[in-house]
Amino acid sequence: MDIGFIGLGEMGAAMVANILKAGHQVRVWNRSPERAQPLVDAGARLVATPAEAFAGDAVFSMLADDAALREVVTASLLEHAPRGLIHVNMATISVALAEELATAHASRGVNYVAAPVLGRPDVATAGKLTIVAGGPAESIDRVQPVFDAIGQKTWRIGSLPQQANVIKLAANFMLGAAVETLGEAAALVSGHGLAIQDFLDVITSGIFPGPVYAGYGKMIAEQSYEPALFKARLGLKDLRLALAAADAVTTPLPIASVVRDSLLEAVAHGDGEKDFAVLGQVAARRAGR
Amino acid sequence: MDIGFIGLGEMGAAMVANILKAGHQVRVWNRSPERAQPLVDAGARLVATPAEAFAGDAVFSMLADDAALREVVTASLLEHAPRGLIHVNMATISVALAEELATAHASRGVNYVAAPVLGRPDVATAGKLTIVAGGPAESIDRVQPVFDAIGQKTWRIGSLPQQANVIKLAANFMLGAAVETLGEAAALVSGHGLAIQDFLDVITSGIFPGPVYAGYGKMIAEQSYEPALFKARLGLKDLRLALAAADAVTTPLPIASVVRDSLLEAVAHGDGEKDFAVLGQVAARRAGR
Amino acid sequence: MDIGFIGLGEMGAAMVANILKAGHQVRVWNRSPERAQPLVDAGARLVATPAEAFAGDAVFSMLADDAALREVVTASLLEHAPRGLIHVNMATISVALAEELATAHASRGVNYVAAPVLGRPDVATAGKLTIVAGGPAESIDRVQPVFDAIGQKTWRIGSLPQQANVIKLAANFMLGAAVETLGEAAALVSGHGLAIQDFLDVITSGIFPGPVYAGYGKMIAEQSYEPALFKARLGLKDLRLALAAADAVTTPLPIASVVRDSLLEAVAHGDGEKDFAVLGQVAARRAGR
Amino acid sequence: MDIGFIGLGEMGAAMVANILKAGHQVRVWNRSPERAQPLVDAGARLVATPAEAFAGDAVFSMLADDAALREVVTASLLEHAPRGLIHVNMATISVALAEELATAHASRGVNYVAAPVLGRPDVATAGKLTIVAGGPAESIDRVQPVFDAIGQKTWRIGSLPQQANVIKLAANFMLGAAVETLGEAAALVSGHGLAIQDFLDVITSGIFPGPVYAGYGKMIAEQSYEPALFKARLGLKDLRLALAAADAVTTPLPIASVVRDSLLEAVAHGDGEKDFAVLGQVAARRAGR
Repeated sequence: MDIGFIGLGEMGAAMVANILKAGHQVRVWNRSPERAQPLVDAGARLVATPAEAFAGDAVFSMLADDAALREVVTASLLEHAPRGLIHVNMATISVALAEELATAHASRGVNYVAAPVLGRPDVATAGKLTIVAGGPAESIDRVQPVFDAIGQKTWRIGSLPQQANVIKLAANFMLGAAVETLGEAAALVSGHGLAIQDFLDVITSGIFPGPVYAGYGKMIAEQSYEPALFKARLGLKDLRLALAAADAVTTPLPIASVVRDSLLEAVAHGDGEKDFAVLGQVAARRAGR
Repeated sequence: MDIGFIGLGEMGAAMVANILKAGHQVRVWNRSPERAQPLVDAGARLVATPAEAFAGDAVFSMLADDAALREVVTASLLEHAPRGLIHVNMATISVALAEELATAHASRGVNYVAAPVLGRPDVATAGKLTIVAGGPAESIDRVQPVFDAIGQKTWRIGSLPQQANVIKLAANFMLGAAVETLGEAAALVSGHGLAIQDFLDVITSGIFPGPVYAGYGKMIAEQSYEPALFKARLGLKDLRLALAAADAVTTPLPIASVVRDSLLEAVAHGDGEKDFAVLGQVAARRAGR
Repeated sequence: MDIGFIGLGEMGAAMVANILKAGHQVRVWNRSPERAQPLVDAGARLVATPAEAFAGDAVFSMLADDAALREVVTASLLEHAPRGLIHVNMATISVALAEELATAHASRGVNYVAAPVLGRPDVATAGKLTIVAGGPAESIDRVQPVFDAIGQKTWRIGSLPQQANVIKLAANFMLGAAVETLGEAAALVSGHGLAIQDFLDVITSGIFPGPVYAGYGKMIAEQSYEPALFKARLGLKDLRLALAAADAVTTPLPIASVVRDSLLEAVAHGDGEKDFAVLGQVAARRAGR
Repeated sequence: MDIGFIGLGEMGAAMVANILKAGHQVRVWNRSPERAQPLVDAGARLVATPAEAFAGDAVFSMLADDAALREVVTASLLEHAPRGLIHVNMATISVALAEELATAHASRGVNYVAAPVLGRPDVATAGKLTIVAGGPAESIDRVQPVFDAIGQKTWRIGSLPQQANVIKLAANFMLGAAVETLGEAAALVSGHGLAIQDFLDVITSGIFPGPVYAGYGKMIAEQSYEPALFKARLGLKDLRLALAAADAVTTPLPIASVVRDSLLEAVAHGDGEKDFAVLGQVAARRAGR
């Protein structure tokens, strides 16, 4: 396929590399063009404006947050995009913005698909992301070859694009809750003189298998939060978005508020660039340790 | 081995059945002796007093709570127990009582092992419990054959019996937190018009594998909380004990307080006998649904 | 003075009435002009556009929320406002918008004062509001005669306009916390068979004098939440703004999250138009009553 | 009257001094008899055993906590107390123990009155405590002269003694919530560059008059938590009791859990002997300040 790709952060760059490997043509745009060099070396074409990326069969975007996306995807950009183009936004954005974008695209004849991904940069590099896609089925069908290049599985959820964002935010809320809970449980068992890793061995071999409890648990047990696989600062962003999405449907999420507050505390203590698992340190500090 | 077994509730009865199958001799005692009949049919010997169970190689206890245990394991009972007897308490009790019992047993020459189990009655019936054992290694060595009859794995954690109880309570706290989080996330996604099961499919096939998220999640998605595999009322008991164990080492557990409050709300609405997963209903009610 | 006044809701209309009584000339504008009639009868002049109100010595605004204010106070409006005009915004808006407005006004030579008020409509009618004014001292000096007409006391707080909004939001957060606490305490004492009013008599005659505990407490004791003096829906708005203001300075407010969630629950149950004191009903419902 | 008084801590000693001034005869007992000397100098008679204090017209007790009271008021003591004696327990104890004591006293023909007090040691010294009395009206009538010597007002609440304890715990829960809220609001306003005292001036002159907001607020504004008027450690004790009293009637108190956790954090950081207002420091630390 002939696609554009906007946003070459850690996640975006890993995705483009895999898309190129699968044989697609990719025009890339990034605010800081020097980030594009390795991809250009691998066959991508660097373009000078977002508008040039908004062409071909489809354009994918993977920008940092709502503000970055708003700055790039303006009314004017959409106005000049070719009718029938498919825009696939893979970033984790607010449900409110997703809904607004769906309407704005529709009114200009551009197809809009929300396709946030589950998985950290290492998973993106391995081409094993989980993709949650929302929007018109036929648009998703057409970009499925690209999804296949970057993910191991595409879930089609909901008829409205923004519903895919809800799934993503709910998943990250659950992730945050699991890590906060791990941190608190670790503070409890270590308070009673036990080795945190011993506790983790028991639960991860039984009731809580899988990478989340083992991976974040290990960082907490070792009090080693760098290098970050998923930064606390970004986790905080997602918790805020989850709370906002819940507020929009008048749904209290008391657990999410606790996690948000602990992440705020981590950031306030200068640990925003450390891994999400630094919630274990927050829990230990509350206990005076 | 020649053992006594005190407490023939759902869990205790399932354990004794497996112990008998493994060829051990078991004297059983229960407050309501009629519960013992199926086990007597399977070869157990019913005794009339706890004292008669407190004999042989070892005695196991699986009573409902701190109060029930205190009533049975009195100073007088310990006074008349044979020196060198091993008492293995498998019930989920408070860390404070476990510590008190460890001291009381030691002063009377009775060995005390805390061996709480992870797993619900169906797991107990299958002989696949996870056992967390704390106490003197040689005592645990001696009763290991019985553990092998009821569990798939014995974790030896900590040198003090009560540390095993800490592990159990921390694990059940994590379980409660996971279920409460599932309930909140379900309220969020359903509030946005999505099917809860679709969300569960995404997370359980990826970041959250294992029986907890799939099993409790399904009950929440189907709003079907009976028959209970793990009753809300008992979950509340365990959350209280986890909070008390944390308080004893000056450790705040904000997530545990949220779960405790939601369980209190469930019980206050008459749902104490329903499954723990009824937390999903509490979260939905908060959102007016 | 010759002033404009924008926004004739319950609060705004009561203020204008008092400003007229004090002998000032007032041009009024409201989206629904029919609301202006009683004030026109009392001497106000109804104008057709916000621009006509943005003239004279000063213009005051008392609109419902951030969105309403943004719609009226556009770049174009400020562009055409007379240099040296003072705009006094008395509404409870976000700290972020207040900061943005301060910058926007300054760049166009319009003076900006934030002067949110403490007090409900009955207090506004009595001309006894508490005014918290932030911004350039000389601007505040010039509009002080108007403040004197509507309030009993003007507090000058902070050199930056938005700091006055912080004070207002912090005060309303404290109000919300007091009402939620009252609701929970009422659920506790009534759960033990006591009359809520008996409890209130004890605390309001001693440790908690003043109108908040007595007034909201009475509504909770009588379970009578209408007519609303301060609507739950508006309280929720303010709690959201307080949380956002705290987030902006990386400050967790766990109590505010609890109050926000209880207000969300009230709104989700259809009680958004009832008085803030309906938090008492939320607390009782949690306890199954 | 001829009374006994058990427990000469700061509060008890101040009460006895006032009772003596009012002309009553007082037999005093304390675990550490040397604390009694100033009172003996003022006319009290020191006795060697609690039993000697349990005589005359009435006996008052003001011990530190449930454990201290249980140790003194044993079955044997009650067995030997004169029939018809009135025991007035003024300490803040658990509702559960109050209920148990009421039953134990009744079964031995001793009248039991619960009369917890509101007010700190300085208020006790001034003889201006607020007394909340629960139990048989005629017993309260008989000891009213003593209450008049130590308090400014006696509230008769509820027919069951333990209901007075519920009132006391609910009041202290509200106090804790107010202080925690003050601490959080202070962190919010100071985070925006405002002086905490400026904020306090606004709210205490308006919506929140009275000693609580002004007094604790000042300590928070000055970050001065010693000498303690009400120790954080004792506040934590009361919050635990309030949560237990609420749990007993299946009533969630989410605000109380937040306050309890913040107090735990204060104690964990070595601030248990500082004033309750140290909650302001906890809130500031959460914000990294």
